Amino acid sequence: MRVQFDEMKNTIKKAFIRAGLSEQKAETCARIHTESSRDGVYSHGTNRVANFARHLNDKLIDPDAEPVLCGQMGVMENYDGRMGPGVLNALFCMERAMELASQQGMGIVALKNTTHWMRGGSYGHLAASKGYIGICWTNTETCMPAWGAVTGGVGNNPLIMAVPNGDAPVVLDMAMSQYSYGKLEVTRQAGEKLPFPGGFDKNGKLTDDPGPIEESRRLLPTGYWKGSGFAVLLDLVASILTGGLTTAGIDRKKAGNCGGCSQIFIAFDPEKLGSGGMMASAVEETIDQIHNSEPDREGGQVFYPGERTALTRKENIEKGIPVNDEVWKTICTLAGI
Amino acid sequence: MRVQFDEMKNTIKKAFIRAGLSEQKAETCARIHTESSRDGVYSHGTNRVANFARHLNDKLIDPDAEPVLCGQMGVMENYDGRMGPGVLNALFCMERAMELASQQGMGIVALKNTTHWMRGGSYGHLAASKGYIGICWTNTETCMPAWGAVTGGVGNNPLIMAVPNGDAPVVLDMAMSQYSYGKLEVTRQAGEKLPFPGGFDKNGKLTDDPGPIEESRRLLPTGYWKGSGFAVLLDLVASILTGGLTTAGIDRKKAGNCGGCSQIFIAFDPEKLGSGGMMASAVEETIDQIHNSEPDREGGQVFYPGERTALTRKENIEKGIPVNDEVWKTICTLAGI
Repeated sequence: MRVQFDEMKNTIKKAFIRAGLSEQKAETCARIHTESSRDGVYSHGTNRVANFARHLNDKLIDPDAEPVLCGQMGVMENYDGRMGPGVLNALFCMERAMELASQQGMGIVALKNTTHWMRGGSYGHLAASKGYIGICWTNTETCMPAWGAVTGGVGNNPLIMAVPNGDAPVVLDMAMSQYSYGKLEVTRQAGEKLPFPGGFDKNGKLTDDPGPIEESRRLLPTGYWKGSGFAVLLDLVASILTGGLTTAGIDRKKAGNCGGCSQIFIAFDPEKLGSGGMMASAVEETIDQIHNSEPDREGGQVFYPGERTALTRKENIEKGIPVNDEVWKTICTLAGI
Repeated sequence: MRVQFDEMKNTIKKAFIRAGLSEQKAETCARIHTESSRDGVYSHGTNRVANFARHLNDKLIDPDAEPVLCGQMGVMENYDGRMGPGVLNALFCMERAMELASQQGMGIVALKNTTHWMRGGSYGHLAASKGYIGICWTNTETCMPAWGAVTGGVGNNPLIMAVPNGDAPVVLDMAMSQYSYGKLEVTRQAGEKLPFPGGFDKNGKLTDDPGPIEESRRLLPTGYWKGSGFAVLLDLVASILTGGLTTAGIDRKKAGNCGGCSQIFIAFDPEKLGSGGMMASAVEETIDQIHNSEPDREGGQVFYPGERTALTRKENIEKGIPVNDEVWKTICTLAGI
């Protein structure tokens, strides 16, 4: 089914209020979840509502905690997220990074002891929509074995980079596993194969069949050894700069999905840096170069990163946002409807 | 054959002096090339000496140009590399980023109009060896089609992240193509297949056979669409912050390999930020987690990123640095020996 943006947001908001969030916090969290589904990232939008509500109920997330400044130097600030809602903590930090950038060209905010930020792309899109270059990443609990291993591991540690371009910004939102467990599940349920091998079966053979990977828990890192190594470095830099938990530390703490994770938010203000005009032309010629390349199939189209998101957004605003019937029913139940 | 470090460095130095570098600049460039081979990165060490000398001879690189400050704000500085030797420009910028970091916790230096920096890992290792977290990346000319395209393209845009850990730092040095053309060539010459598919043949079929990929010029981005998107974002951020050329701009300029490229150098000083102790424990528990995971084959060993480099370095210092006979002969000829 499809649900209009406002109806979806208001229903999710009711669910979050019932789960213990204040009216204002529920409004913001519901907006972010709805925007994620609006942009086609259903896995971290509507599909995460019940999970977030459960984490609130289980006291894995403190609905009232707000980030507290615990260090400052130059353009850097450090916050303790105090296990508050990850979405609110992350929004606060990217907004603070943008504020620092508007004063000093760039800002960097390190956040520890936070909880799942849902769709990392939200904070990149936020920065880009306000004219800032945004970069952010998080560490997570172990999600896959390091390269060369069969047991865990390294985190999924998504990295987001966003560059302004009107209402169709250039955005990368990249996890360190080639596919998520969500993608494996959806693909298996549809009786399909993955587009490319997504992990190893229990015999160590690369496979595009999702079931055996779910069994072995051997997700393939993005680019084999590369994604594994990248995950380690993102984890270390995030935990060192925040003074917060590493992936190994999150594993030990077992505070739910991403509970206690460490995040970095960076913003650059091209206007303040005097490179606003440069930005427009760099983006234009880069998009042109991509659009003018020859597609790999007849009638194909070559997209820049983030372009399809903008198209999905437009479609979902017009037609309503797709949501799985069961998922919507659960959200309505949580909302007391 | 194997050549001892000092003999290799001094021979390369002679070659560079004959190609037009001053004694001091030749010494530094020769050291970096030798260190790359010492660390096992032969492709960007000895194997690049003749190429660099030719670029000097062809006036694609200005042997006397030094970076000029052209902007400053907060912890950021901008330099114009004036098409000087890429290695010297990059060393200067990472050193400057470290200096800024030692004063303000972090430093970021943006460099435009520079030339090939050879092995990007050199600048990560430099930072880590002095106790800094180092991050740097460069854009390049087009190296592969964007995802979904058969023609160029996007750059290879390597990203380097380095975290101190005594003489075995944690270092990622990651290009945006799954394999380099150098790796394809070496693999084809040995009559072997790539460990995993490395590109598409001219019929659009993924293949691990290097020859057909060299023909089609359709290198596979790291992680399929992910590496393609990441390349675009690294390119845009580098060119916007430097005010320098994008990949599309480098393509237009045709100033040799990476001629006129844009680079970013970031350093964090954990001591200044008060997170030196935190860093040591984060690194230790992360390495432990990796070392304690179960290897995917009997007798196997799971390495952290950069660990094998440290082992190769040790071996090559003891036994001498391996170099292809023909390559060494060419270097000696260039050195007038």
